[in-house]
Amino acid sequence: MKAITSRDNPLYKRLKALAGSTHQQRRSGHALLEGFHLASAYLDVAGQPETCIVTEGALHHVEAQAIVGRIDEQRVVTLPDALFGQLSNVVNGVGMLLLVERLVVPLPERVTQTCLVLDGVQDAGNVGSILRSAAAAGVPHVFCAPGTAYAWSSKVLRSGMGAHFLLQIHEDVEAQALIERLAVPAVMTDSHGADAIYDTDLSGPLVWVFGNEGAGVSAPWRDAHTRRVTIPQPGGMESLNVAAAAAICLFEQCRQQRAA
Amino acid sequence: MKAITSRDNPLYKRLKALAGSTHQQRRSGHALLEGFHLASAYLDVAGQPETCIVTEGALHHVEAQAIVGRIDEQRVVTLPDALFGQLSNVVNGVGMLLLVERLVVPLPERVTQTCLVLDGVQDAGNVGSILRSAAAAGVPHVFCAPGTAYAWSSKVLRSGMGAHFLLQIHEDVEAQALIERLAVPAVMTDSHGADAIYDTDLSGPLVWVFGNEGAGVSAPWRDAHTRRVTIPQPGGMESLNVAAAAAICLFEQCRQQRAA
Repeated sequence: MKAITSRDNPLYKRLKALAGSTHQQRRSGHALLEGFHLASAYLDVAGQPETCIVTEGALHHVEAQAIVGRIDEQRVVTLPDALFGQLSNVVNGVGMLLLVERLVVPLPERVTQTCLVLDGVQDAGNVGSILRSAAAAGVPHVFCAPGTAYAWSSKVLRSGMGAHFLLQIHEDVEAQALIERLAVPAVMTDSHGADAIYDTDLSGPLVWVFGNEGAGVSAPWRDAHTRRVTIPQPGGMESLNVAAAAAICLFEQCRQQRAA
Repeated sequence: MKAITSRDNPLYKRLKALAGSTHQQRRSGHALLEGFHLASAYLDVAGQPETCIVTEGALHHVEAQAIVGRIDEQRVVTLPDALFGQLSNVVNGVGMLLLVERLVVPLPERVTQTCLVLDGVQDAGNVGSILRSAAAAGVPHVFCAPGTAYAWSSKVLRSGMGAHFLLQIHEDVEAQALIERLAVPAVMTDSHGADAIYDTDLSGPLVWVFGNEGAGVSAPWRDAHTRRVTIPQPGGMESLNVAAAAAICLFEQCRQQRAA
């Protein structure tokens, strides 16, 4: 275990640059996982992190000790609270971060299972919530189109609550590259003149496409003979938050599969 | 129409204090509605705002002109962009804010219709998303317990997308005061040994209780003979974001009511 005490330490400078910039996180292919829950979810599926960063105080916690105990000693560094604070995105955090490479998965040759396309979903909280719903519904693949909030950013990781490690997340997937590989129908929600989700057979594999919060689904997906379904909304409001709509659709599919 | 040009103007100082503090918004009972969509939703249901604040540039937009045209001229003030910017919570906003009193509704004598209790839901984005789902599902009343993000804060208003004006939102409702008034069963989600929502009759009126993101539903509601239901989750992940869970429950109820 190594102690870093100077803000001029090269690793510390690198961590600070990463922590402060989603762009830098995306460019470097590295992610910062904050807190015990994400750290332990990562260790369960991916093995050793590049580095585990803890405050000296955190080492007194039983939970932190359990996690540090799973990591090669030479990969652990300690930081004073003041230096750690500048890396943290969480108020009253627990004083633990893992520096890891993001998990990269190859695009499947053919898409044959139910999966999700995030077609420009912009809000990090929405992306995290949708990843969590996908993991809960047992949907294995999520394809993120350009314009979608970066899935491995600190904010999306935090709201995903470990879903990242139960899913195969594909970044920067162009619509055309995916459309060519589809062996199952694509579906999008549309409030105008489409069949209700309850009246549509959703029990087989489907590619769900959810679009940008403002602009909706992009032209290539709209043009791809994508089936349209609607969520009947008996109230006066005619739209749902995209993460709420995704949850309703995925779990209506689960309900139909369970009933079948 | 009055032009404010000085940052020492008393109204401007008041607006700036409000814009910068959710606490101040809650304490004063006033809210700031930013953008055309919220402004027009407010005018549709509540009549005249206290003040409409626009930038000189915004007045060139047709949409802004339409909204300003619905407001008494003596209630409209213009601000230079630089002063307006300090009131705005939106990047690249449209340059329009309404200052309004929040809508206050009395607690019903008896709760006889389907309604929602937010029992310490902390994240403003989650509260906004749930309000939107409630409005879409046609659920008229939302009761916010202490500890819930303030519904009339700028962030919740923004993510609610106008749902505030289709609902009766009750703030600071203590569990006991509401439990005494219930004429319909209360329901909470629970992943342990509860009936699946699909196997539970949800077609009648229900009080849905959704708890804090970390701690869940509070003791008074857990002790109140609240019925437990579970959302079956076939994936490995065993939890959903609270706003996603609320959407799934409310729309499963809509599905059952539609089928009945």
